[in-house]
Amino acid sequence: MTYCVGIINRDGLLMMADTRTNAGLDNIATFRKLHVFRVPGEKTFALATAGNLGFTQSVISILREGLEREEGRVERLVDQDSMFQAAQFVGEVIRHVYRTDGSAIEQHGASLEVSMLLGGQIKGRNLRLFMLYKAGNFIEATTDTPYLQIGEHKYGKPILDRAVTFNTDFYDALKLGLISMDSTMRSNLGVGLPIDILVMRRDEIDPEVEHRIEAGEPYFHDLRERWSAALRKAHNDIPPPPYGQKKS
Amino acid sequence: MTYCVGIINRDGLLMMADTRTNAGLDNIATFRKLHVFRVPGEKTFALATAGNLGFTQSVISILREGLEREEGRVERLVDQDSMFQAAQFVGEVIRHVYRTDGSAIEQHGASLEVSMLLGGQIKGRNLRLFMLYKAGNFIEATTDTPYLQIGEHKYGKPILDRAVTFNTDFYDALKLGLISMDSTMRSNLGVGLPIDILVMRRDEIDPEVEHRIEAGEPYFHDLRERWSAALRKAHNDIPPPPYGQKKS
Repeated sequence: MTYCVGIINRDGLLMMADTRTNAGLDNIATFRKLHVFRVPGEKTFALATAGNLGFTQSVISILREGLEREEGRVERLVDQDSMFQAAQFVGEVIRHVYRTDGSAIEQHGASLEVSMLLGGQIKGRNLRLFMLYKAGNFIEATTDTPYLQIGEHKYGKPILDRAVTFNTDFYDALKLGLISMDSTMRSNLGVGLPIDILVMRRDEIDPEVEHRIEAGEPYFHDLRERWSAALRKAHNDIPPPPYGQKKS
Repeated sequence: MTYCVGIINRDGLLMMADTRTNAGLDNIATFRKLHVFRVPGEKTFALATAGNLGFTQSVISILREGLEREEGRVERLVDQDSMFQAAQFVGEVIRHVYRTDGSAIEQHGASLEVSMLLGGQIKGRNLRLFMLYKAGNFIEATTDTPYLQIGEHKYGKPILDRAVTFNTDFYDALKLGLISMDSTMRSNLGVGLPIDILVMRRDEIDPEVEHRIEAGEPYFHDLRERWSAALRKAHNDIPPPPYGQKKS
């Protein structure tokens, strides 16, 4: 399983991804799911992936090495000149891998519920965030819905629904993303530490933060403890239901 | 969609169910999903249902009217003499309806992801809570895992995971169930008011509360407002992440 979330707001772009993969419950491993493709000062693309690991790794490899075009020319993700073209290109590579490997994988009963988040900015263009489906089509986050999720999205959605808007303070939004990650990790063993995060300030092109939160890191540990304590206090502070006679 | 939760603890049994049904997003209606079968002072069975409405209504009707046995005799849910037998009987009726209607429904592409919660007590026996699957098999809640959910269970699970134990105060557990219901309603339009609740104190056999929470009811409205405000405060009180230089 996997949980990745991307948030785009007035200040910039945040991407977070867990690193746990599992082939069955008895085969758990750690793999990076948040991949950054850069031309320093010019272009930054961040891609978070969910779904069959062989499939998504093939997509990443082709995005780096290039898709073959006519006369030996190859086209890479970093060759794209707009975020929209980049999303189209990732979609094309997803379809390419599907044509190459997809039906063989599905014949053996493995699921191909692949999805990806693509965020980033090219100098002089807009910061954008997309979610790609396994058919290679995609949607874009907007000011109305400034976050997108892939993988195990339900456990972590309520806190985002309640608190994340386009005008949420940037690092508060990062904090909310981490709370969302915490809720997901508590309820689904297939999502786990470390967590990779990327922080990109709007129009600065180069990432402000690329960081891996490891198990035991004090800030994240403290966030989890504080959130648990605050939730306990929150429900304790709500009066008991008035239905019936309370006898206990 | 549907969300139902049952909680069994040291003090008794709580059952909650929303009432929204939908056949497509453009056809939404209100139907009771929490059904109570009683022999006053002797037996109380509460059954919450999720899945295809025609299927679950057939099951309810047969449980009330009886399944035909030899020589014109019929057997009803209230005829059962233990909760375990009751769970077996509900499972048998699910299989019966599946044999009668199931393959025809599935031929037309409708989903039959039926599941049910059965809770209750028979005088002189133990209070018990079961979850039945569409195959008619079932599991039972225990002191380790004192709650069971059916339908859209993920949005409302984190708060139960964090706070509900076998020794949670009875009406606090009801409050937590309602918070879980609130989280689900916020994130899935297919789950909605009114909410039916049943409160059964251990060994009292007859329900302590049978209540329908309608839209606009002051207590539930206040609970939702307080929970939202407390969550806002909870994340506001967590310090900002230390990663990178905070510039905003």
